[in-house]
Amino acid sequence: MKSINIGLLGFGTVGSGVFKVIVRNQQEISRRIGGIIRVDTIGVRNVDQIKAKCVQIFRELNEKNDPLLTSKNDLQLLLEHGLKVTNDFSTILSDPNIDIVVEAIGGIDDAKKWILSAIKNGKHVVTANKALLAQHGKEIFSEAKRAGVNIAFEAAVAGGIPIIKVLREGLSANRIHSISGIINGTTNFILSEMMSSGLNLDQALSRAQELGYAEADVSADVDGIDAAHKITLMSAIAFGTFVRFNEVYVEGIRYLNSIDIDYAKKLGYAIKLLGVTKRSENGIELRVHPVMLPQRSMLAKVDGAMNAIVVDADAVGRTMYYGKGAGSEPTASAVVADLVDVARLLTVPVKYHVPPLAFQSDLLEDSDFIPISAMSSAFYIRLRVIDRLGVLAQLSKILFEHKISIDRLWQIGAQDLNSNINLNEASDGEDVVTDLIIITHPTTQGDLEAALKDIVNLPLVKTGFTRIRIDDSL
Amino acid sequence: MKSINIGLLGFGTVGSGVFKVIVRNQQEISRRIGGIIRVDTIGVRNVDQIKAKCVQIFRELNEKNDPLLTSKNDLQLLLEHGLKVTNDFSTILSDPNIDIVVEAIGGIDDAKKWILSAIKNGKHVVTANKALLAQHGKEIFSEAKRAGVNIAFEAAVAGGIPIIKVLREGLSANRIHSISGIINGTTNFILSEMMSSGLNLDQALSRAQELGYAEADVSADVDGIDAAHKITLMSAIAFGTFVRFNEVYVEGIRYLNSIDIDYAKKLGYAIKLLGVTKRSENGIELRVHPVMLPQRSMLAKVDGAMNAIVVDADAVGRTMYYGKGAGSEPTASAVVADLVDVARLLTVPVKYHVPPLAFQSDLLEDSDFIPISAMSSAFYIRLRVIDRLGVLAQLSKILFEHKISIDRLWQIGAQDLNSNINLNEASDGEDVVTDLIIITHPTTQGDLEAALKDIVNLPLVKTGFTRIRIDDSL
Repeated sequence: MKSINIGLLGFGTVGSGVFKVIVRNQQEISRRIGGIIRVDTIGVRNVDQIKAKCVQIFRELNEKNDPLLTSKNDLQLLLEHGLKVTNDFSTILSDPNIDIVVEAIGGIDDAKKWILSAIKNGKHVVTANKALLAQHGKEIFSEAKRAGVNIAFEAAVAGGIPIIKVLREGLSANRIHSISGIINGTTNFILSEMMSSGLNLDQALSRAQELGYAEADVSADVDGIDAAHKITLMSAIAFGTFVRFNEVYVEGIRYLNSIDIDYAKKLGYAIKLLGVTKRSENGIELRVHPVMLPQRSMLAKVDGAMNAIVVDADAVGRTMYYGKGAGSEPTASAVVADLVDVARLLTVPVKYHVPPLAFQSDLLEDSDFIPISAMSSAFYIRLRVIDRLGVLAQLSKILFEHKISIDRLWQIGAQDLNSNINLNEASDGEDVVTDLIIITHPTTQGDLEAALKDIVNLPLVKTGFTRIRIDDSL
Repeated sequence: MKSINIGLLGFGTVGSGVFKVIVRNQQEISRRIGGIIRVDTIGVRNVDQIKAKCVQIFRELNEKNDPLLTSKNDLQLLLEHGLKVTNDFSTILSDPNIDIVVEAIGGIDDAKKWILSAIKNGKHVVTANKALLAQHGKEIFSEAKRAGVNIAFEAAVAGGIPIIKVLREGLSANRIHSISGIINGTTNFILSEMMSSGLNLDQALSRAQELGYAEADVSADVDGIDAAHKITLMSAIAFGTFVRFNEVYVEGIRYLNSIDIDYAKKLGYAIKLLGVTKRSENGIELRVHPVMLPQRSMLAKVDGAMNAIVVDADAVGRTMYYGKGAGSEPTASAVVADLVDVARLLTVPVKYHVPPLAFQSDLLEDSDFIPISAMSSAFYIRLRVIDRLGVLAQLSKILFEHKISIDRLWQIGAQDLNSNINLNEASDGEDVVTDLIIITHPTTQGDLEAALKDIVNLPLVKTGFTRIRIDDSL
């Protein structure tokens, strides 16, 4: 059987998972491709430490099958597998014996340098690096094309869910209309906890960190950057455009208040952080922000650290893909699936492979993106107002002037969310501060922001408000 | 741009959908593959009727874009698209101009004849014919291999959900443990209606027929045959075995009583018809039958005519794929995706393509299948008993003798499901008939059937009982 030799750069969460999956499932994978995928060389800073880890993995995985294994020493084990470990990445990239390079070091600058170097050396590249591809995809894909090599990145979006393959190949008959996805497990865990246990953001975040769902530096997750990288990549693949990370509108969950989670629940909604991309006549929408979804919707039911992506397309209709979006082995599942794809066509010219962005690179469109101010949505607005006669009249007037029509409206106080309030009726006693919740009919964000600017200037309205998009169609 | 010419056999629900999707999305598809997929010839019985239909489709799809179109007559339209329609299938199969044949005539004998003939003529074949492949897959795949052509069948399972691609390629790094799927939309619609509206089977079935979710002949759906075809194909692809339809255990929903749907609901379960295949040390389980699932499970939430498939695999964990499992365009979405895959590698030897059953054909295993009697499950059992002192003692004794342990037990009568009954307490007044519900701990079906055989011989037990599998793990 033919051997396909992998150079693996990095041995952290992703790299070690890739190594483990390849070793453990070598037989199963070989039966699929009719060849053997093997890690030939690992590139890491600390060679001895990683050698020891590899030996440990060999022992763990073989313990049951091979009683002779315990008698072998560490060096024998490495030699038997023909495994080399080096801290000199350039030897891997220039090794004619290496067929495919897996970049699992993460970050931007170094990863970019090594990937470009691998491409120049004629190596196919597999990576999980969403940040790099979202920001430098155009350059990297074009270099890969020039060098006639493949660059595969299934693991960059939604971990082990094969959503890139689904978009590029599974739905290739379709004109894709939109993608809406829960594509950051950390924030979905946090929001699920806030929904179910009534925790506030900080408490839910601590819990996520305790359970290993969140890194110490939570900004990429909580501020929506990670989701933005992923939806940017999916958008390009779905619509055949260049990767344009600078076009994505990003709003994270950092300022989500547990009061609003609570109100949302009472109104029959769940709040989820969604990555959304849509194609319309005027261009492409590309955005990440919290959305209120009807509790009956399939996406609303996706709890904990799970990911799920809904794709709307013209022939197939609505499909959904659900699974773990992160973690060592789920991510490795995607990396190794890419290795299998690349290995299968190793000797076939790359023009016959599926292009990285699904569409032929010379047929990518430089589409217009729609600015967030022009995007339309229904909104949930919570204002803190002084409960005095006239406040509703003033608010209604401003909304009317900005062409925003009110779908529903509640005043929270002694009253419950279940009782609609009468627009003309408000107590005129002492200055009682109360919450006012307005659900608008669809309006552009531009109109809404303009109205809110006027509204917060009203003397009866306290500073600070919340506005969250609502999508009843999901 | 290179043209890939399709010969389309059949123009019913699937065939017309394929034609429509190819015509409508030609530009989008061309941007993906860098070539044009076009229907060259359609093979049908009634040539004139189908010509007229095609013309109608051209007019509908182009109406907005091409005002000149209305001025063209039907013949001009067909000529302009270079479309031929014939009732002589053999001319299509021997036409050197045709690259790929789509079989959309359905049924077994004729479809098999034409597919084998296409293969012998060196044509790649795309089909949605699950019945044919489940029953004659071994022969057809082996003929295709011999002739060096590809046979693709994404549309055979779960309509437009690209589950075949996911299993063959997306999860290729994994050792797949099990697949559990709602893979028949008709029965899922019926069960959803029974659950939500309290209809009985006949009423729900009539409703499905009114809405076009069920054919006049419902046997293939209601008796689980259609689901059995699909799970048989998925099982082979997941585990690398031959297609063995004769090994599948099938139990449909025909004898499901609305009483049991109601009890299930009260116990926190939903009843779904599942296709299940699992790999264990002793062999492969392959079965179709109703299952009680916890209402919180993602599969339980799949309502109406939708399909969803849960895959458990060692690296990725649990993933789920959801969408429309039938219908003209969802099925066409899968057929055309196959066409795109085949077209992309048209000039590349078929040994580099993904093999039809995911594993290399010379590495398929002739695995053992586990007989249904040896498969283990928890069970819901409903018995109609005469409510007299001693009946519970007799039942418990029999279950104990067959090594079946009772998880929960309710007696339904004046009492409600919520009140557990005391095993030693039963009224000894008049002969009151009452329902007794037993939920067992996992037991083999063999032991259960043996116990039930003894139980129905008890004088206090009325004839007729229900037993439904329970899966709390999903």
